[in-house]
Amino acid sequence: MSKLPKIHARRDIDPSKMFSIEQLDLEFSNGERRRYQRLKSRGLGAVIVVPVQHDGQVLLIREYAAGLHRYELGLVKGRLEAGEDVLEAAQRELQEEAGVAARELTELTALSLAPGYMTHVTHVVLARDLYPSRLAGDEPEELEVLPWPLEQLHELVQRPDCTEGRSIAALYIARDHLLKNA
Amino acid sequence: MSKLPKIHARRDIDPSKMFSIEQLDLEFSNGERRRYQRLKSRGLGAVIVVPVQHDGQVLLIREYAAGLHRYELGLVKGRLEAGEDVLEAAQRELQEEAGVAARELTELTALSLAPGYMTHVTHVVLARDLYPSRLAGDEPEELEVLPWPLEQLHELVQRPDCTEGRSIAALYIARDHLLKNA
Repeated sequence: MSKLPKIHARRDIDPSKMFSIEQLDLEFSNGERRRYQRLKSRGLGAVIVVPVQHDGQVLLIREYAAGLHRYELGLVKGRLEAGEDVLEAAQRELQEEAGVAARELTELTALSLAPGYMTHVTHVVLARDLYPSRLAGDEPEELEVLPWPLEQLHELVQRPDCTEGRSIAALYIARDHLLKNA
Repeated sequence: MSKLPKIHARRDIDPSKMFSIEQLDLEFSNGERRRYQRLKSRGLGAVIVVPVQHDGQVLLIREYAAGLHRYELGLVKGRLEAGEDVLEAAQRELQEEAGVAARELTELTALSLAPGYMTHVTHVVLARDLYPSRLAGDEPEELEVLPWPLEQLHELVQRPDCTEGRSIAALYIARDHLLKNA
């Protein structure tokens, strides 16, 4: 298990540096009026990748998660960069975070994060026929890669360090897809 | 399908009214230093509920999601109120959103939302032995309740209006739990 980063300083900063909030004045079809707020995503969307080996194991990564200040086990993910499509972003993130590339990439679906108040959308990509290939990313440290049998998701989600809804949803969706198309 | 609310006005507002951002100066165990930002959750946490009927169908709700400006199919969920524990919040939200209460409530796990930059945690509660009971909530309109066979999640997640990572993860986790404990 990786040693946690040391926190040298922490302070509150102006939220407008990172986020925009949009306020909507709504009228529902029954005539009810409400004011809603939503967090506007500034990026081009995100991608989450399920890399499955020939032996049926999925490659997970262990990465520091600042929101919870702990290491979390989950899938390769990241934001789309300017000019990239979804599969190009998946191929790049795979190489930066897991040290592999894929000869076969399939977009399965798109997941929302908190659709009630966030505009954020994450594309789910299944990656197969993997081969070693590393690209330098902006990670502060090399990420540990852990192969996990795709048929043992029940055990995985019971681990206290595997909690991210999107990763868990993407793993089950990929497993169902592979079972239906076997 | 419900008719979408009409947007009468939209404007950007000061993010500090809704969110706090904390900046962390970090030193990783390899000596690398980075500055991270995270969105601090102001609430007491949230609960997401999987209500399963005796016939094996799960009760989904269709609710307006302002983040995506569309109706989304998902699970009952909401924030913990002051003085409530997780199961009390689940029982209240069930009655407000789905018009049922449960004689058996079991906390299965806790999910994170975006652990890299959010502190948010959602408790997953399985609800069984349901009976009709309605509490008035703060919803602008009555929510449509849709029973769905728990063994047909593969078809559910292919619907374009069922996209929330946490709901999908909670459904699969509950199904695995019920299969293992059948």
